[in-house]
Amino acid sequence: MDKLSLGVDLGGSHISVAAVDSSGAILLKEVAPLSRNEEHDRIIDQMIDMLRSLRQNPGLNGRQADRIGVGVPGVIDMDRGVTLFIPNLKGEWRGVPLKDRIEGALDMPMVLANDVRCFTLAEFRFGAGKGSTHMVGLAIGTGIGGGLIVNGKVHTGLDGVAGEIGHIIIDVNGPRCGCGSYGCMEALAASPAIVSMAVRAVRQSAGATKIAEYAEGDLNKVTAETVARAARDGDFHAVEIMDRVGFYLGVGISNLLALLSPDCVVIGGGVAKAGEVLFEPIRKTLKATVHTAPLDKIRIAAAQLGTDAGVIGAATWAMASA
Amino acid sequence: MDKLSLGVDLGGSHISVAAVDSSGAILLKEVAPLSRNEEHDRIIDQMIDMLRSLRQNPGLNGRQADRIGVGVPGVIDMDRGVTLFIPNLKGEWRGVPLKDRIEGALDMPMVLANDVRCFTLAEFRFGAGKGSTHMVGLAIGTGIGGGLIVNGKVHTGLDGVAGEIGHIIIDVNGPRCGCGSYGCMEALAASPAIVSMAVRAVRQSAGATKIAEYAEGDLNKVTAETVARAARDGDFHAVEIMDRVGFYLGVGISNLLALLSPDCVVIGGGVAKAGEVLFEPIRKTLKATVHTAPLDKIRIAAAQLGTDAGVIGAATWAMASA
Repeated sequence: MDKLSLGVDLGGSHISVAAVDSSGAILLKEVAPLSRNEEHDRIIDQMIDMLRSLRQNPGLNGRQADRIGVGVPGVIDMDRGVTLFIPNLKGEWRGVPLKDRIEGALDMPMVLANDVRCFTLAEFRFGAGKGSTHMVGLAIGTGIGGGLIVNGKVHTGLDGVAGEIGHIIIDVNGPRCGCGSYGCMEALAASPAIVSMAVRAVRQSAGATKIAEYAEGDLNKVTAETVARAARDGDFHAVEIMDRVGFYLGVGISNLLALLSPDCVVIGGGVAKAGEVLFEPIRKTLKATVHTAPLDKIRIAAAQLGTDAGVIGAATWAMASA
Repeated sequence: MDKLSLGVDLGGSHISVAAVDSSGAILLKEVAPLSRNEEHDRIIDQMIDMLRSLRQNPGLNGRQADRIGVGVPGVIDMDRGVTLFIPNLKGEWRGVPLKDRIEGALDMPMVLANDVRCFTLAEFRFGAGKGSTHMVGLAIGTGIGGGLIVNGKVHTGLDGVAGEIGHIIIDVNGPRCGCGSYGCMEALAASPAIVSMAVRAVRQSAGATKIAEYAEGDLNKVTAETVARAARDGDFHAVEIMDRVGFYLGVGISNLLALLSPDCVVIGGGVAKAGEVLFEPIRKTLKATVHTAPLDKIRIAAAQLGTDAGVIGAATWAMASA
């Protein structure tokens, strides 16, 4: 019988743990809330508890899991299985030996990977990128992460950090990014940029936009989702913002195509849920800016696996490293 | 005895043909001038004549060449061996079946490749990139071309067009590029951009720059080399231009590092001959803009094989495809 792997997706507000088979199917999954202010030791203990309970769950009908993959939203040392920088968690997890802790507690081999690289692998093997040879995955949320598949394999590069698509500079005169550079795609098109454009639009339009209505008149309640919803409902200001965001994303993706000539680009993450109000300006921008790669042969697709892509990818990564 | 390959480098002003062994050494080489206004049929006849004469040259001491690699400065269909677009040659070589013509005339298998991808392969195997695993090659001249080595192999991508580094957009508000987009690295940092900045500097400084002196007071004689020479001699205006060019190149290379995390970047082409006046601002920009890739472990090196890289790479490509 087909062996199982255990996948862990460490998010900013939750931990997901799942038992996954080689076809990418989830047999059992558990999700627990996570406090960003918790010490990393406590969070790791929580992961270990969840993994132990999953492994012994009678719902697996006696099927054995023999390895673990963990995806984290930050920079890691893949070889040593140590986290180097997870910006959204307390203490930034600098130098946390996650692999040693988890392997020690569960006596199973573990691999550590970046969460968006896990998302990319899952979409490539089982989702929107199925059948592709060279694929790029993008996850657009509070940041923009990415992953590269070259010749059917995840390309991780030196120190395992390849794929930082969000930090491609597309406007040398642009705003400062969290990374320290100016004009990265992430600084221009992730949800904080969308919210900031929307707040300004609400102020300048004296509230005459559906964004204000959907945020119940409270600027603190403006989110990328509010803007996307208003855009879908035809609100002028919201459409204008999504057009601009789609333009920036289109330019960034155009750069990926010029450089890598992939056959497929899969776009996921919270912001991508906006759907056509975002994909339409992305496609329009690609038509205007792609001159070397064969755009008509390249699929630009929405992610298909939803929030499960992270755990499925982490578990699949563990299997692939067997 | 080690077999030989014949390499052809079709430039904008010359054709080079060489017999190359598996260590990348050139046994014999012939270079002939090329008129851009010549019909492609005549140019192909010239290539065939040069290849025939090289193959029979007694200087090879009876060693046999059994395959041919041809590098061209443009877009190609690698699978069919057809040129799609060579901007600097008459008629732009749209749909020229180079492989069929040459294989028919010489009765030897031929591979067609982009010239900068050939340069990249040669530098990777025998030049500045030796020992690398993931390398990026850049050739900066009248345009900016590139090539990618991933896991020791040239990554050519869909339709063989991966590596168009010059068409990475780094300034969405920048000047129009020859490709049709705005703000590509090539539009900002290749020799036409350098010359245009220099001509303006000469005008605005009322000739009080060494650039004017080295161009003998004739604005039509200003070249990227003139500017580099003036910068090396400490001319304020020329240094400022090279700083700006190095900044743009640094931003583009920073994008490559964020995306691919290579262990080595090799920079060649006419503009790169400027040396430290260009490499110093590139390195300074990388320090300011690289935040995810491990910059201290990545070699940023000048190309080592000079103008021979093209023929060596083309011949090596043919061997590798055997």
